[in-house]
Amino acid sequence: MTIVRRFSACRSGAVAAFWAVAVFSLPAAPAASPSLNLMPVPSQVTVTGGTFRITEAAAIGMVGDAGERSRKAAARFMERLAGRTGLFFEQDFRTGLAKPDEAGFLFKSGGVGPLDGTADESYALTVSPDRVLLVAPTDIGVLRGLETVLQLVDADDRGYFVPCVQIEDRPRFRWRGLLIDAGRHFMPVDVIKRNLDGMAAVKMNTFHWHLTEDQGFRLESLAFPRLHAEGSDDFYYTRDQVREVIAYAADRGIRVMPEFDIPGHSTSWLTAYPDLAAAPGPFRIERRWGVFDPVFNPADESVYDFFDCFFQEMAALFPDPYVHIGGDENNGRQWDANPEIALFKQRQGLADNHALQAYFNDRILKILAKYGKKMVGWDEIFQPGLPRDIIIQSWRGRASLFESARRGYAGLLSNGYYIDLCETAEKHYLNDPLPDDVALSNAERRLILGGEATMWSELVSFETVDSRIWPRTAAIAERLWSPLEVRDVEDMYRRLDTVSVRLEELGLLHIKNQDMILRRLAGRVDIGPLKTLVEIVEPLKGYSRQNQTPRYTQLSPLTRFVDAASPESRIARAFRRAVDRFAETRDRTLVEALRRPLERWRANKDSLRPLIQASPALLEIEPLSQALTTVADIGLLALDVILAGTAPDAAWAEDRLKVLEQAKKPKAHAELAIVSAVAKLVRTTVGK
Amino acid sequence: MTIVRRFSACRSGAVAAFWAVAVFSLPAAPAASPSLNLMPVPSQVTVTGGTFRITEAAAIGMVGDAGERSRKAAARFMERLAGRTGLFFEQDFRTGLAKPDEAGFLFKSGGVGPLDGTADESYALTVSPDRVLLVAPTDIGVLRGLETVLQLVDADDRGYFVPCVQIEDRPRFRWRGLLIDAGRHFMPVDVIKRNLDGMAAVKMNTFHWHLTEDQGFRLESLAFPRLHAEGSDDFYYTRDQVREVIAYAADRGIRVMPEFDIPGHSTSWLTAYPDLAAAPGPFRIERRWGVFDPVFNPADESVYDFFDCFFQEMAALFPDPYVHIGGDENNGRQWDANPEIALFKQRQGLADNHALQAYFNDRILKILAKYGKKMVGWDEIFQPGLPRDIIIQSWRGRASLFESARRGYAGLLSNGYYIDLCETAEKHYLNDPLPDDVALSNAERRLILGGEATMWSELVSFETVDSRIWPRTAAIAERLWSPLEVRDVEDMYRRLDTVSVRLEELGLLHIKNQDMILRRLAGRVDIGPLKTLVEIVEPLKGYSRQNQTPRYTQLSPLTRFVDAASPESRIARAFRRAVDRFAETRDRTLVEALRRPLERWRANKDSLRPLIQASPALLEIEPLSQALTTVADIGLLALDVILAGTAPDAAWAEDRLKVLEQAKKPKAHAELAIVSAVAKLVRTTVGK
Repeated sequence: MTIVRRFSACRSGAVAAFWAVAVFSLPAAPAASPSLNLMPVPSQVTVTGGTFRITEAAAIGMVGDAGERSRKAAARFMERLAGRTGLFFEQDFRTGLAKPDEAGFLFKSGGVGPLDGTADESYALTVSPDRVLLVAPTDIGVLRGLETVLQLVDADDRGYFVPCVQIEDRPRFRWRGLLIDAGRHFMPVDVIKRNLDGMAAVKMNTFHWHLTEDQGFRLESLAFPRLHAEGSDDFYYTRDQVREVIAYAADRGIRVMPEFDIPGHSTSWLTAYPDLAAAPGPFRIERRWGVFDPVFNPADESVYDFFDCFFQEMAALFPDPYVHIGGDENNGRQWDANPEIALFKQRQGLADNHALQAYFNDRILKILAKYGKKMVGWDEIFQPGLPRDIIIQSWRGRASLFESARRGYAGLLSNGYYIDLCETAEKHYLNDPLPDDVALSNAERRLILGGEATMWSELVSFETVDSRIWPRTAAIAERLWSPLEVRDVEDMYRRLDTVSVRLEELGLLHIKNQDMILRRLAGRVDIGPLKTLVEIVEPLKGYSRQNQTPRYTQLSPLTRFVDAASPESRIARAFRRAVDRFAETRDRTLVEALRRPLERWRANKDSLRPLIQASPALLEIEPLSQALTTVADIGLLALDVILAGTAPDAAWAEDRLKVLEQAKKPKAHAELAIVSAVAKLVRTTVGK
Repeated sequence: MTIVRRFSACRSGAVAAFWAVAVFSLPAAPAASPSLNLMPVPSQVTVTGGTFRITEAAAIGMVGDAGERSRKAAARFMERLAGRTGLFFEQDFRTGLAKPDEAGFLFKSGGVGPLDGTADESYALTVSPDRVLLVAPTDIGVLRGLETVLQLVDADDRGYFVPCVQIEDRPRFRWRGLLIDAGRHFMPVDVIKRNLDGMAAVKMNTFHWHLTEDQGFRLESLAFPRLHAEGSDDFYYTRDQVREVIAYAADRGIRVMPEFDIPGHSTSWLTAYPDLAAAPGPFRIERRWGVFDPVFNPADESVYDFFDCFFQEMAALFPDPYVHIGGDENNGRQWDANPEIALFKQRQGLADNHALQAYFNDRILKILAKYGKKMVGWDEIFQPGLPRDIIIQSWRGRASLFESARRGYAGLLSNGYYIDLCETAEKHYLNDPLPDDVALSNAERRLILGGEATMWSELVSFETVDSRIWPRTAAIAERLWSPLEVRDVEDMYRRLDTVSVRLEELGLLHIKNQDMILRRLAGRVDIGPLKTLVEIVEPLKGYSRQNQTPRYTQLSPLTRFVDAASPESRIARAFRRAVDRFAETRDRTLVEALRRPLERWRANKDSLRPLIQASPALLEIEPLSQALTTVADIGLLALDVILAGTAPDAAWAEDRLKVLEQAKKPKAHAELAIVSAVAKLVRTTVGK
């Protein structure tokens, strides 16, 4: 895979400027948006001027052997276009195609692309006043291009249109994945499907299905039915559902790679088949979170017989060339405690548990190879001597990724893309799998295949998972698709807001479940003051929330106030930006935009109180609500001081900053996301 | 089935009073709700005083042969309880049961109830400070009782509790159904599942799955694969999905009755198998709405061979004893035009098309009987001489239902429960299948089995269907479960608000998709002024919307402003009630509650304008927005006049009423639901 660098010959800082200039040079329609909302940004865009108007007569047509996949995608495209514009298209777009010369939307595909990670996903899009012409070497390229067209749709006072552009686009990395952990919390088929739609919308191409965990074995097995019968609490995918998901993904140009995490992380397997464990059973499905002892016995030949039979079944069920075997976080305790295993290590000349796991992996690798599959695993599986077609997925960091590449192994980056940790989109966005300055040869660089966002599910349920994935994953998708130089954070956020709303078209619940959780907590429809608070709150970052009390388990409700909070508050971010600008410029016209929200926040406590009093589940947010009033009050005071231009009072500022430190501390497993901005206002009073 | 009349010996008007008195006689906890929120109202409730406090230690236990169904239901119960209260229960409620004497929630079931419409669904619930004891003759009764417990959960400043009550409950009718039309617009499995959960929450027991229509054949057939391959646009349920839905319903004590609408409404079938039609093909999946010509050929023996084979397959797939064959709206044109059919009628001595359809039905009946199924059909199937185990479902009206009963046939009422027509909950609620004064013998009365809400899907998609079903269907559920005397409309609405929010726990989208549709239309997250408008707007009632232009087809987007509007506006209703009260009492303390919303509505136009300007799809609401300003302005003027106590000005009032008439007219396929209230204010100025 070659790294594409065709982004209009402009680099890093100039990118936003490019967008602005290109669009502003248009003979712009009066109400047209000031810039395009493409995400990921294509490799090359030229705005050519003029518009293709979308009317009821707009129809799709196809040229060449487009195949069933692009035919279906075109019908979905028209449906989404109708949904967004309210237009009643005249074409029966489900069964009919317009003749090429009568098609407003004309698609040409060179043929059906393979779903194995090697497909050419490039496309060329030419929008002229008469036609939207999409040409791609494969139907997968057509799919990617259709998403671009939908993102281009804009409106002015004459109606909806596609701006005339010339786009040449291809991905920078060929592996752009999303992992969903269905092991810890089961994610029903509809959750998976709508997230596949979300992935397709931002041109991701690999769904990494984490199917087994200490806390659940989520897949029907014909060969070993006790796995799902005893290891899942009855929350598992049937084989038919697996096929349904694979077909659904394939229709969207997305591969499905299953993960069966072994030899650790396997309590649920061993609950069903305790004889395969390295320690005597019985075992029970784990309810807590963490790293646990149960592990397969690598010294037991019947374990390999089991996996031979198991992977034979799974190799037939999953068409993808790769199977992920996990391989992470085996604490080795059961291995150390088992004298037979000690003896086995001695006999095999295996110095330590790392070597023992390497032995195990090697046996599994041979089984996979027998059934035509290649192996993927987390950093821990790396060992010299592995065949060169395996892939290392790095949760530990880029250094480990680069190190594998230097040794000749392909790799994927996930470190820095842990979306379960509720970090900012910015942080993920700037985490490049292959920065310009890394010391790798070109051949080694080609071994960095891409990356995956990982949605671990300790603290998400089917109700909240969408809100942890979206919209931040769109920023990761852009990182993996767009040229290296595309890294303007402000522009990314601007586009992310639009993308977020459009993702709702696909049934994603990332926005709407916020209010739903608040309504449930309040037991009523009107939740104004709760909403005011939740909008500027973020869940604790990293692993802090897991370390709060009460300690979360698999059975804990994830329906609290903190679960309604977005990982990254839009409103708090806008407020921080406004403070930054004000602190820098002292522009008095900005004051109202700061004062108004601060006043609203200061007053919120009183209107929130009756809701808290009616709902014991909301009691925990009383301190958060109090803190907001305190913080807003300080913000307003600081504003007054700045505006009055009185002499700096260092002691007052010092005191207020201490109060803010307290206000910032975790409350109800969440934190106020405006405190740093108010602290900045306070520091501004003393000229800092 | 016997009609139960044990509602606490109090009747109609006294019902609300009963609730109030019973609860107010409690040594009430300070913040306790003023009344219970049960829906449907149980046959007998006694509030005994005191509370069962819900703590982390609360655990479920079971006595007797409860079976897998109630075991699973109990785990779901605990999950929902945790979700609502935020409590981290100590019990591993998925795999463990507490010992009976340690179980806070103790369930006793007499055994597994049959899912054929004859199960005893009664239960007795005794809540004391120490225990919630639920006893039922069948596990289905346990399920019904668990929903009651969840509805009883309340809170005060000490936390969550169940009030101590003694409830004896059983349904008035044994058939309480919801029809979902998946033919006209396909409804994916997740839509069906979440609506099954909604049904269970309000104790409905029959899911009527309308699977075939002119516009789509929605079911995989092994025997006749062209049915789904050519008749569905690829939107169909696989046989596995059907089994999945049936199992999901069964877990919730709900039967699944399939409907295959024949001999008319069958364009999709005949698209696949044109030789079975009464006229020469080819046919195409119908996109328009209405009654169409294509019909099976009743004179063709191969049609009966086809159905024999078809129903053999379906009889094996669907375990329910009943199969619904539709039978409605055959316009007879193709029969009239076919000389072979004319000859056939002559030979068989069939006087008219009605007799011919009776012949057809009789042949189908015999096929169904051969495969062990009983027949259900719409009014049109009724004919003398049918066996007595068939059921007539009345879409035409109660008269036809009673007439069938007099002739000895069992019947279901659907007339008056057409929830697709966007009527008020009140209207459905007061539509009793068996009023006291109807002239039927006791034996005939027993033939009225119940009724079904019908969700026809011409104008709903998978995105909006929940909002047309809920919460109004809960009022129908109450009509069919609760005693005849329970008919206090105000109290019903009060409880409906609570039920509506709680239904969201089950994943239903009826509330949250309103904002989503508005966000999509506006292309942004902040939709305040759109929300202000949509909240007091209702879609056109009855069939008026279908008669608007542009004409709707199956491919039309249902993503417009009107699709975001609720069938019945909560806020408009509250405003109407407030006006009623004010007009009656002239109580000046009510004025602010009228003035505030009127002022907000009057001002809304200006804040809405930029949103409309940015979105051509919103242009159509400009007149609606203008009308709101006009109406609100008139309302405020009328208020001023009333308060000033000036002399009546009949001409002014007359003029204003004319303006209001105009304002009330359909705009954007919707209407303002506050106009009648403002007209009342105007009339009040002249003392009417």
